[in-house]
Amino acid sequence: MAVRTPDPDPDESGEGALPSDPLRGVGTAGGGTANPAWLSDVELAEARRRIPMLYVEAVPVRTDGVGAVTQVGILLRATPLGEMTRSIVSGRVRYGETVRDALFRHVENDLGPMAFPQLPASPVPFTVAEYFPIPGVSAFHDDRQHAVSLAFVVPVTGTCEPRQDALEVTWLDPAEAASDALAAEMEGGRGTLVRQALASVGALR
Amino acid sequence: MAVRTPDPDPDESGEGALPSDPLRGVGTAGGGTANPAWLSDVELAEARRRIPMLYVEAVPVRTDGVGAVTQVGILLRATPLGEMTRSIVSGRVRYGETVRDALFRHVENDLGPMAFPQLPASPVPFTVAEYFPIPGVSAFHDDRQHAVSLAFVVPVTGTCEPRQDALEVTWLDPAEAASDALAAEMEGGRGTLVRQALASVGALR
Amino acid sequence: MAVRTPDPDPDESGEGALPSDPLRGVGTAGGGTANPAWLSDVELAEARRRIPMLYVEAVPVRTDGVGAVTQVGILLRATPLGEMTRSIVSGRVRYGETVRDALFRHVENDLGPMAFPQLPASPVPFTVAEYFPIPGVSAFHDDRQHAVSLAFVVPVTGTCEPRQDALEVTWLDPAEAASDALAAEMEGGRGTLVRQALASVGALR
Amino acid sequence: MAVRTPDPDPDESGEGALPSDPLRGVGTAGGGTANPAWLSDVELAEARRRIPMLYVEAVPVRTDGVGAVTQVGILLRATPLGEMTRSIVSGRVRYGETVRDALFRHVENDLGPMAFPQLPASPVPFTVAEYFPIPGVSAFHDDRQHAVSLAFVVPVTGTCEPRQDALEVTWLDPAEAASDALAAEMEGGRGTLVRQALASVGALR
Repeated sequence: MAVRTPDPDPDESGEGALPSDPLRGVGTAGGGTANPAWLSDVELAEARRRIPMLYVEAVPVRTDGVGAVTQVGILLRATPLGEMTRSIVSGRVRYGETVRDALFRHVENDLGPMAFPQLPASPVPFTVAEYFPIPGVSAFHDDRQHAVSLAFVVPVTGTCEPRQDALEVTWLDPAEAASDALAAEMEGGRGTLVRQALASVGALR
Repeated sequence: MAVRTPDPDPDESGEGALPSDPLRGVGTAGGGTANPAWLSDVELAEARRRIPMLYVEAVPVRTDGVGAVTQVGILLRATPLGEMTRSIVSGRVRYGETVRDALFRHVENDLGPMAFPQLPASPVPFTVAEYFPIPGVSAFHDDRQHAVSLAFVVPVTGTCEPRQDALEVTWLDPAEAASDALAAEMEGGRGTLVRQALASVGALR
Repeated sequence: MAVRTPDPDPDESGEGALPSDPLRGVGTAGGGTANPAWLSDVELAEARRRIPMLYVEAVPVRTDGVGAVTQVGILLRATPLGEMTRSIVSGRVRYGETVRDALFRHVENDLGPMAFPQLPASPVPFTVAEYFPIPGVSAFHDDRQHAVSLAFVVPVTGTCEPRQDALEVTWLDPAEAASDALAAEMEGGRGTLVRQALASVGALR
Repeated sequence: MAVRTPDPDPDESGEGALPSDPLRGVGTAGGGTANPAWLSDVELAEARRRIPMLYVEAVPVRTDGVGAVTQVGILLRATPLGEMTRSIVSGRVRYGETVRDALFRHVENDLGPMAFPQLPASPVPFTVAEYFPIPGVSAFHDDRQHAVSLAFVVPVTGTCEPRQDALEVTWLDPAEAASDALAAEMEGGRGTLVRQALASVGALR
């Protein structure tokens, strides 16, 4: 399947947005309205070809009364080209932003303000996923950049109302979430990431 | 300071209770009322001298909106001899019981039913603490037995009303919880465990 | 397939050996020659029906020059009934023994003295596997007992010469080791454990 | 004490080197000799003010026969200003480079080719250290940039011969390595990182 970027950030002027992003005007000079430390579209595109980009990713889960994972939330997204693809919560860490704040921001962006996520107390991810622009270097692939992602399992206790380009959250049981069928639909190799997430919580068979 | 056992379990007939435990009658034949797979007091005392006992421990914490630890809950307990000592949530895993269920049971026993703990999604502890009857083998010591404890950080969101022999929960900030002064008051070397817990969540300086 | 015990320990008088174990005399009164703190066969069999037994397990791996896992070592064992089955390094922690010492002892028992294992610096396992005598409670099953196992990935740099009842070590690449075919041959659900081990080192696809 | 950067990379044209670095000529146009994807000095300095930089760090340790940490290696460095400071292995991940390769490269740069490091099988760091240019945001501080570091404990089995600007490796026992005295000498808050490393291997008291 076509691979797309982990983090279009379409609501952020000049911060990670693709020039071709249909949800924002091409002409908005990013640096103008945002933090001056942030990058314009051109600068960000340039940096993406030169520096590893730091990302956070979250696999949303539902847990039972004693913390065991019962369901995994998979996002359905529309790509800028109108294609449908499956993914997880994913986005870039901004300059000056803590990893926790970035994780919270992207969970809220993708799952809505009523998801009530329980961010982990530990800053240690369950894995570090390395996305390379050339396929085959690792399990993960991103046409656009070299991205290194800190990936977390995040229990959510509220109601998910996807925002932005995430159209829907589908809740799957662990066996479905680990299936080859789902992996084939997920972008950039994230089926592997979901399996590693399940393994980290003892829910992979 | 005098060292006492991690898990008096005084409310459980024949399951981990000390013969000298003031909260229960010495004459209650443990095996009678409990699961037949469980042990009488005599059998348990015997097993403690022959087999490593499996424990779970929990360091209760309060977290802020993005999951960072802001406070650590330390229990004040009265020992069977009337001495005051500081500890954390600690108790034995029973035959047939999952680690999660044991963790939930002991958190509820020590913090009350309104603590609303968020048990971790991952079954991996932040450390494995080994208690030996002879001091100096490891950082941890238990006169009574060789115990191996799976230790977890557990955020609690509700109100703690200590039950059983836990008299009080004191909430300390991370710096106080890591202090030498607190470590000196904690039983069995658990000051070390609290520091390791803080380190695991990035809150040890 | 038939399920067998994680740790026959056939070379240890009265320490974990099955009464039916063909490699040792039934009449050797275990307690006589061993550490008095250890258990006779009868006592151990009794304890196994009353107390969770603490185990360590090791998934042996070969790594490349920068630490990435390239191969997984799977043991071929003969059961007491002469059946062939696949497993990993597995054994009980003795009274008074550290988890590290137990891990080293069982790796050496199963892989021989020239395996040169690199035991992990961290005492934290990649997962905690819970074996119950009743199938279906968890992913892991052991007819004989309730066992809780701390499972580690252990790189070995030398030559493996299986001893005891391990007949052979087969080195598989990560994809083979994670396959359904292998999982079906492994005892007690350990195919799941191998997958979780691979996930923990980023080698599960 | 004065804070300096985690990664001078003085041997790399245009890759992380400080313009004021005494070990390389100021005039070497970085982009010329290096991978075209890499950055010139000016570009890198610019990126450092706009994007979080991804780093790896390693706490070198010596272990005993069963993997327990017995000593911690602390580097003595001379800063560009001639000041002496203590640190650990630290450096930037380059565009297109895996985290493992970066870790190996920086360990070899700082400890020499005969250190024989055992890089961890798992890609998961013991902690994620966040360095901000403004002191007080986190435990870690770097005047020059916002850096996010994946920190690993790396056992070394050979002989360390520091290269580049690392003048010496001092081996300390865990208690010394965790002391306030050492922490006061370490740059950018790395005393905290050493303590977290010790905690992760069960060697912090």
